[in-house]
Amino acid sequence: MTWLELAEDHPFGVHNLPLCSFGRECAEWVGVRIGDRILNLAGAESLGLVDAGGSLDGETTLNRFLAEGRPTWTRLREQLTGLFSDSRQREKVEPLLFEVGEVRLGLPFDVADYVDFYSFEQHARNLGKLFRPGMEPLLPNWKHLPVGYHGRAGTVVVSGTEIPRPWGQRKRPDDAAPTYGPSERLDIEAELGFVVGVSSGGAVPVDEFREYVYGAVIVNDWSARDLQAWEYQPLGPFTGKSFRTSVSPWVVSLDALDAARVPGPVQEPGVLPYLQGRAHHGYDIRLEVTWNGTVVSRPPFAGMYWTPAQQLAHLTVNGAFARTGDLYASGTISGASPEETGSFIERTWNGAQPVRLSDGSSRSFLLDGDTVTISATAPGVDGAAVAFGEVTGTVVQEL
Amino acid sequence: MTWLELAEDHPFGVHNLPLCSFGRECAEWVGVRIGDRILNLAGAESLGLVDAGGSLDGETTLNRFLAEGRPTWTRLREQLTGLFSDSRQREKVEPLLFEVGEVRLGLPFDVADYVDFYSFEQHARNLGKLFRPGMEPLLPNWKHLPVGYHGRAGTVVVSGTEIPRPWGQRKRPDDAAPTYGPSERLDIEAELGFVVGVSSGGAVPVDEFREYVYGAVIVNDWSARDLQAWEYQPLGPFTGKSFRTSVSPWVVSLDALDAARVPGPVQEPGVLPYLQGRAHHGYDIRLEVTWNGTVVSRPPFAGMYWTPAQQLAHLTVNGAFARTGDLYASGTISGASPEETGSFIERTWNGAQPVRLSDGSSRSFLLDGDTVTISATAPGVDGAAVAFGEVTGTVVQEL
Repeated sequence: MTWLELAEDHPFGVHNLPLCSFGRECAEWVGVRIGDRILNLAGAESLGLVDAGGSLDGETTLNRFLAEGRPTWTRLREQLTGLFSDSRQREKVEPLLFEVGEVRLGLPFDVADYVDFYSFEQHARNLGKLFRPGMEPLLPNWKHLPVGYHGRAGTVVVSGTEIPRPWGQRKRPDDAAPTYGPSERLDIEAELGFVVGVSSGGAVPVDEFREYVYGAVIVNDWSARDLQAWEYQPLGPFTGKSFRTSVSPWVVSLDALDAARVPGPVQEPGVLPYLQGRAHHGYDIRLEVTWNGTVVSRPPFAGMYWTPAQQLAHLTVNGAFARTGDLYASGTISGASPEETGSFIERTWNGAQPVRLSDGSSRSFLLDGDTVTISATAPGVDGAAVAFGEVTGTVVQEL
Repeated sequence: MTWLELAEDHPFGVHNLPLCSFGRECAEWVGVRIGDRILNLAGAESLGLVDAGGSLDGETTLNRFLAEGRPTWTRLREQLTGLFSDSRQREKVEPLLFEVGEVRLGLPFDVADYVDFYSFEQHARNLGKLFRPGMEPLLPNWKHLPVGYHGRAGTVVVSGTEIPRPWGQRKRPDDAAPTYGPSERLDIEAELGFVVGVSSGGAVPVDEFREYVYGAVIVNDWSARDLQAWEYQPLGPFTGKSFRTSVSPWVVSLDALDAARVPGPVQEPGVLPYLQGRAHHGYDIRLEVTWNGTVVSRPPFAGMYWTPAQQLAHLTVNGAFARTGDLYASGTISGASPEETGSFIERTWNGAQPVRLSDGSSRSFLLDGDTVTISATAPGVDGAAVAFGEVTGTVVQEL
């Protein structure tokens, strides 16, 4: 199938082809991953091996390419498949290949606006119980619209970036007044994030999802639960979330995820027409959360209540523009069992049921020095998996 | 004082010098306003009349200049004062002057992240009563931290941009289920916005406010109250706010506002140390809200409970970066009387007390074709006012 020495079912095979930003010391070029190597796309375009309208050569992030739109996205994918399949191209292509282990990966795109949804029913129920005990956990709007809010674009960082423990205000239940200090309840949120390529002049209908969205990354929406609980009413999370958000370095295209499509969830009560469409489908993407090397959960994206096409339609229903580089995350992915939860506040039920790590220690929330890695894979064609790679981060004391 | 034919107390005199982006058809250059004219700063730098480290020439927005920091800001201000005061410079400067009425003003800076606070006590009490009737209007955190949230940076537009009425979900009190349609309760929020010049690596202490923040603009945070009321729990406002946010085209420097400083509000209970500082001061800035030509309120910024220095310290307390081009708005400015409120939901008490306009019509919320203009002035040196100009917008049917 390819002249590269790759197993047929390599999760970064020709059926995947995620894009990235990379370089020797810092982000220098845009590239595409094939197997355990990266093709310098900027170099390939400058040599005329691929044609993306000049949007690759000289760029350090994917934004210009993302803005080109689906015809260019599709053409590049076809050209790359050709390059990697045709052994006559080997001589030209090999000098442009770098070993993944020998380069530095950058933030693949400049983030325009960052939005975070809250679209997994079990997660919303769990957080409702934990944050508003004694009240109905799911608020009345939840099944009518994908609840979301804007996060901080400027603190989205690439996998591997250290996460300084945030400081701020928190008020413990028995405290008479709030105190200032490092978060004592530092947590993660395992999510998928969708990346907008083409800017919209306004509303994006559900069925035009694929014309605007290029692909997806894994997101870890680090969350300081003590800061969040004290600050979030009435205007939502702020300092409890805005310190850092980590994303995986590989942008997996929607094309690579075609084989992972699953029917959209049954939505009852029915949704308003602007949230309906033929493109009502989810994706069977399986995440895995590792805490200091111990797998602690496997959140199933396929169970998401609101689809990414519905989320974008809702985000823009009011005439808001979507812009190249917009990132919108799914919300925490949490299945019904503790072993499927995408946050530690759920995994340990607010610390009441700590998890045991393989070194014998136990955890409720994150300690300094802890490393969390989230990986994801989806089914591809012919039984080969499509890998997202991973997003990882280590908590450090305040810088 | 100046060789330009200007009244000594002209609100855009040499004591003001707000910056802008302007051009004949679109934003072509950065400039500074003097009287009713704009000096092409890009041209002035290219001729060596001013020296801003090359951050003006060739730029269409202020971002590069803003990133230069206070020494450059101060030097430019001194150089401009020299140019406009020394009649020997007239011959060189005059060819670079444009009439304000003959150019097009652009968004003065590319907005990085947009944050909106909620820092006027009377406004928070009013909205609490209107959105959560029967409950304590001020939530327990309100006097301990400046409550805020992230808005949408990509839909910040310059004064004069039309405002398409947003569509979305709303649920009237008697409706069994939400409906989809144009907002029926379109409103404004009159605010001041502060513009970050220098990027921070993390927390910005209260007393370093002036090292990071360049100046201020007027903000109209258009708000669809029906969309907002239905969606905002538990994660805050989203489509009810994100459709458009308008800003004035002139960025007034903090230097120009020195004479407008007023002591910071008495804060009781006392605030945590990270919110304290010698720079605890507000500004005596007076806004005026005009609805189709009728002045309907005069919101007093001086009554703001949280100061801009405290807001920035809180925004970054968790280690979040501030970036060049960040815009953070004060929250709606609303004094105690209806004639001092900065939103129409307060001005008309949720429509119960419509306002009468000078054409004899009355209004509760905005109708298509309505124009809202917010202007602001502050006291300057020697009795001359410092003008912010205005932010204006007309509501149109969905585009």
